[in-house]
Amino acid sequence: MKGYDSSQFEKLSVAVDLLTFTVEDNRLKVLMIKRDETPFAGKIALPGVFVGVNETLDAAAVRGIKEETGLKNIYYEQLYTFGDVKRDPRMRIISVAYMALVPVGQLDYVAGERTSDAMLVDVEDLLASRRSVAFDHKKIIEYGRQRLANKVEYTDIAFHLVGEEFTLPELQKVYEILLGRELYKANFRKKVADMIEETDYVTTGQAHRPSRLYRRK
Amino acid sequence: MKGYDSSQFEKLSVAVDLLTFTVEDNRLKVLMIKRDETPFAGKIALPGVFVGVNETLDAAAVRGIKEETGLKNIYYEQLYTFGDVKRDPRMRIISVAYMALVPVGQLDYVAGERTSDAMLVDVEDLLASRRSVAFDHKKIIEYGRQRLANKVEYTDIAFHLVGEEFTLPELQKVYEILLGRELYKANFRKKVADMIEETDYVTTGQAHRPSRLYRRK
Repeated sequence: MKGYDSSQFEKLSVAVDLLTFTVEDNRLKVLMIKRDETPFAGKIALPGVFVGVNETLDAAAVRGIKEETGLKNIYYEQLYTFGDVKRDPRMRIISVAYMALVPVGQLDYVAGERTSDAMLVDVEDLLASRRSVAFDHKKIIEYGRQRLANKVEYTDIAFHLVGEEFTLPELQKVYEILLGRELYKANFRKKVADMIEETDYVTTGQAHRPSRLYRRK
Repeated sequence: MKGYDSSQFEKLSVAVDLLTFTVEDNRLKVLMIKRDETPFAGKIALPGVFVGVNETLDAAAVRGIKEETGLKNIYYEQLYTFGDVKRDPRMRIISVAYMALVPVGQLDYVAGERTSDAMLVDVEDLLASRRSVAFDHKKIIEYGRQRLANKVEYTDIAFHLVGEEFTLPELQKVYEILLGRELYKANFRKKVADMIEETDYVTTGQAHRPSRLYRRK
């Protein structure tokens, strides 16, 4: 760089670690894998990929999401870059964490070719527990959980966790899960009114009366 | 990692680039250096450092801030990690951008030992101009500018741009500069009332009547 002999500074391994969040059974969940190998063999971990020298960070995130879920065109954003020196005991790895949001209906529990187990883990239960997780991934999940709570009120991220068509109770439930509190139905509907529009359809096949389906405007 | 032969993936250079923002003469400014060497010789650039293999990202940011300003204990936060492949034409460099906020009274225009020029550049003028800047640093500055505007209403970041003691007009001016709009004095004072407290002092030596000095509560 500016006068530094850049050879003084060793190059580092850079990975993209993925938090793929979804809402299932009215719970916020994150996709994780169980590690086969040391370190942390048998522990759950976030999926991740190393960044190629000719690959952008976003491209690595998209590649990682595709490998773990088989999906493309999922909403994602960069979350934070974690750089503690010993976060991986084997070597120095900088982790650029990305967050992806998927409606559960799109998720297929694909076991990536690299691991034997991929699973949806309940986020609140995990963060409240003493269960140990590989690397600093528990911290990364906590960070992502907080970012979701911060963003839900002033962005439209909640819409990425419902399908293209949804009922108002479904959408409200997602908001409540992300915010961690209940909302008054009337206030909620007023709040989202500008963001949604009715479709011509209603839900069917349920014990209660049909519910109008909406979509993002 | 999980079954990947990590040697497939080359290690990458990782830098921390620094946006040191301040408010001077009622304008938002950012500390930049003029490059002596290619590439982009003669262009202005953000100061930066490579991250050492045994150094955390935060430690690299603190080191970089100290090198450019001589200052320690400045408020800083990680902004975003930029990973376009060709952002630096010489080699692949991932840039973890950090933002620091300093009251102008603390800044000494220290020319770092690595460069001949360090200067405060007017942010709005730069972003509105066609002036070319080294690497992707104009994009990084734009991103930082936007983060400031987003955060000023729901955090206390504005306080990092005034001294320990400040007048209400000073503080209001900083809010207005970050938000990009004027505020009603009465509304503003109500908004910040919980965050500040009076000191026993007033400003002196000015043509108008003395102004009460406040501090962060």
